[in-house]
Amino acid sequence: MRIARFSTGEGVGFGVVEGGPGEEFVSAISGHPFGPIQFTGERHPLSQVRLLSPMLPSKVVAIGRNYADHAREMGGEVPEEPLIFLKPSTSVIGHGEAIAYPVGLSRRVDYEGELAVVIGRLCRDVPAERAREVVFGYTCANDVTARDLQKKDVQFTRAKGFDTFCPLGPWIQTVLDPDDLAITTTVNGELRQSSRTSKLMHDIPALIAHVSAVMTLIPGDVILTGTPEGVGPLDVGDEVSVGIEGIGTLTNRVVSRD
Amino acid sequence: MRIARFSTGEGVGFGVVEGGPGEEFVSAISGHPFGPIQFTGERHPLSQVRLLSPMLPSKVVAIGRNYADHAREMGGEVPEEPLIFLKPSTSVIGHGEAIAYPVGLSRRVDYEGELAVVIGRLCRDVPAERAREVVFGYTCANDVTARDLQKKDVQFTRAKGFDTFCPLGPWIQTVLDPDDLAITTTVNGELRQSSRTSKLMHDIPALIAHVSAVMTLIPGDVILTGTPEGVGPLDVGDEVSVGIEGIGTLTNRVVSRD
Repeated sequence: MRIARFSTGEGVGFGVVEGGPGEEFVSAISGHPFGPIQFTGERHPLSQVRLLSPMLPSKVVAIGRNYADHAREMGGEVPEEPLIFLKPSTSVIGHGEAIAYPVGLSRRVDYEGELAVVIGRLCRDVPAERAREVVFGYTCANDVTARDLQKKDVQFTRAKGFDTFCPLGPWIQTVLDPDDLAITTTVNGELRQSSRTSKLMHDIPALIAHVSAVMTLIPGDVILTGTPEGVGPLDVGDEVSVGIEGIGTLTNRVVSRD
Repeated sequence: MRIARFSTGEGVGFGVVEGGPGEEFVSAISGHPFGPIQFTGERHPLSQVRLLSPMLPSKVVAIGRNYADHAREMGGEVPEEPLIFLKPSTSVIGHGEAIAYPVGLSRRVDYEGELAVVIGRLCRDVPAERAREVVFGYTCANDVTARDLQKKDVQFTRAKGFDTFCPLGPWIQTVLDPDDLAITTTVNGELRQSSRTSKLMHDIPALIAHVSAVMTLIPGDVILTGTPEGVGPLDVGDEVSVGIEGIGTLTNRVVSRD
């Protein structure tokens, strides 16, 4: 099932996306999607709603250097334990919203396509073998990064924390085996990243176990699982898309912040 | 004015703390304290309510190495620009709640007493000269840190992100000049940190300008301004207090997490 959050101009809500490519429609649901779903009866062609970030997470926990080939291109090793950092909730945007390039503060802003895991249950200290029980679904993410500030600060927070630097979407796929999915990133239609989630060094159950041993996770919280090799720069005017097999494609334009 | 969040057993709300030491009472207010305050008429002796974290921040932005003498004791320099990192909202606890020592994951958990700034207005790109307009008030904070994990990970997120690792309180003082306040940390009554906020290398207006140039701040968000020299370890059973002139004293016991 594909769960979206959308705006019709008259209000904001969650819905289920049904139908094939180009013919999708959204069936609105009451309240939130964690638990039994009740349809309101309201139905819109997808083309006539505005998709929003599919969740408003209380926190976005991201994982550094979790594909060996990306760790190598960054000049480092895959850490023995997952390396975690946080992106603020104010960095989250949805499919179709603009990434604001902080001109004047950074001269090098990179895309990083990633598989995102959306948490469905309040949980802590989740053993890896039970991790799937706390997953609500999966979506595409772009861990946008001001690479020059990341190098300068060492701490990733500023470089990865700007408003709009966490596109998520277009929706959450709740029925999916995430273990071996094709993941690609394109810029203006050109392929820049192409890998498979089977190359994750620390897999999703290991990440959930690791993160939830530190911090309680709340429904809607998001874990970004790391980016494969091929990261590179974005410019103002670019259109960047992260596509994941079985989920869909998250597309955002880059605009100047000022 | 001192704004607290408290529980009576019958519910949770905000209130104004009035009266002198040992004779304080809390006058409950309607809704939240951002804006005109309306008293409900309900009034409790402070000793008969349970204080909670005075805010539930959407994010806690913390500043690294912002006192020169602490930067030195950590073996580094004060960064030219403020160094920011995030603590998750799930790490926040209030006065009197227990810090849970993650035994088995860390063997060295340190206190770090800090002045915390609570944001009162939705804001972005706040110029330093207007920073005071977005401040709701000030409280005491303890940026509890698993020092061994901080060294291992380099990224601060795990070391500083455990549940209960961000005590805030006991309340928010809204009328205060924060520029030269005594700040102390004691463990079991012994003085461990003693400094003044006048020694902040990047002052509060500079911090607000820096952080809000990266991320939108939301009412209730918290900025921890950094810790002075004298950081050191906590053990299970310890009682740690952070006291700031004009605000009050934040006290928490350390318990084993398991």
